[in-house]
Amino acid sequence: MNPTFPFQPQNATAKKRKVAIICSHGGLDEVYPAFILANAARMSDIDAMIFFTFYGLDAITEDKVDHLHVNMAGNASSPIPTMLAGLPGMDALAGKMMRTKMRKLDIPPAREMLKILDEAGCELYACHLAMDMMGLDKKDLVPQVKDVITAGDFYDLSEGAQIIFT
Amino acid sequence: MNPTFPFQPQNATAKKRKVAIICSHGGLDEVYPAFILANAARMSDIDAMIFFTFYGLDAITEDKVDHLHVNMAGNASSPIPTMLAGLPGMDALAGKMMRTKMRKLDIPPAREMLKILDEAGCELYACHLAMDMMGLDKKDLVPQVKDVITAGDFYDLSEGAQIIFT
Amino acid sequence: MNPTFPFQPQNATAKKRKVAIICSHGGLDEVYPAFILANAARMSDIDAMIFFTFYGLDAITEDKVDHLHVNMAGNASSPIPTMLAGLPGMDALAGKMMRTKMRKLDIPPAREMLKILDEAGCELYACHLAMDMMGLDKKDLVPQVKDVITAGDFYDLSEGAQIIFT
Repeated sequence: MNPTFPFQPQNATAKKRKVAIICSHGGLDEVYPAFILANAARMSDIDAMIFFTFYGLDAITEDKVDHLHVNMAGNASSPIPTMLAGLPGMDALAGKMMRTKMRKLDIPPAREMLKILDEAGCELYACHLAMDMMGLDKKDLVPQVKDVITAGDFYDLSEGAQIIFT
Repeated sequence: MNPTFPFQPQNATAKKRKVAIICSHGGLDEVYPAFILANAARMSDIDAMIFFTFYGLDAITEDKVDHLHVNMAGNASSPIPTMLAGLPGMDALAGKMMRTKMRKLDIPPAREMLKILDEAGCELYACHLAMDMMGLDKKDLVPQVKDVITAGDFYDLSEGAQIIFT
Repeated sequence: MNPTFPFQPQNATAKKRKVAIICSHGGLDEVYPAFILANAARMSDIDAMIFFTFYGLDAITEDKVDHLHVNMAGNASSPIPTMLAGLPGMDALAGKMMRTKMRKLDIPPAREMLKILDEAGCELYACHLAMDMMGLDKKDLVPQVKDVITAGDFYDLSEGAQIIFT
């Protein structure tokens, strides 16, 4: 006899916490908050999923995942004056600087983070509509992406979750 | 005798899912995630509301709703170099390109989306404080806006909802 | 005999509403939505906390809190052409204009808002990882910051909360 039996199903529903992250931007500095929040959720035994949409698709696109830029011109906190931030290559340079800093702190690069998240049980999804807009196909995405789903599917998967739109 | 009676009120509270979207940015590419998430919620029979605040007010302002730009300079995913993105008219051009792409995918323009959302039962609200900051009056807004409310009112309306800040 | 006793514990859990705001951007126009939502929550007797991470740390850094800029180049709603928005000093000017407008509406400056939030019982936290990335120390932050915590700690504190990522 399991003494907790009568409360089990109820608790199971109430207790299993879930986080559904929507990643809608593709900058290195915009993607990492999503990655870190997803990873921390799994470390805390919270269910986690990321739904990549709009520019966020860059983070799971084979051609782009290794070259995510840092958006300097559109960043009020940037130490670089906006005028200079507009110079060609500046975003890439900022991305390089951020990557160096991250490496020193042992934060893995984006592609590696996706593998870690996948192995930790975080489910990665791509937005169907955004894929159509960008002219992308499932084969253009990293293999860790579980499925291409609609916003309606996202709602099915995020029932009862804390939704975090990044 | 309704056998489910004793659980009814509890279930009623627990089951009616609600999404409260805060739309705080006014770019075409920033407004559509809010629109699409709200619409998908209604399609899934989830209660939905959008609270437009700060630059998000552009999306429900009569003078601006048909001319929402795409923010190229502040977009790390942009294919256009930041320097060129800063040229006059570039944001408008990007907006035009995005509109063409959306039309091909049968995604309605912003003004049309607001009508569709309203008819689908999604409630549209404007932020009182942001209206004051921008010097806007209720008559400056599209007719689908149900009311101008405070952040406090927003909390009343979003009790139990999944909040999505876009 | 307290007639509500049998429902008390259940209600206590169900009723005490909580809002956990993540502030990840440092522009004046990006920080205020977080401040205003946190303050409105406290006014409505909802528990509130703000977790400052990435550029959001600017808003609680002693050296920066009084000089937060408005991001013009990365703002599709800006009335200033992107090219001009890139000129040196333009962000600072926009920040000054926004500050003047806010003063007219009796909206307190950022440093003052943090004091008000603290006194209203809103808990302010800084992200450990982001502090490391920016090379910041607890002593660099305003005194209202309660603690420097990890993303894992954030999840502990935000259990059952509505999460708002700004």
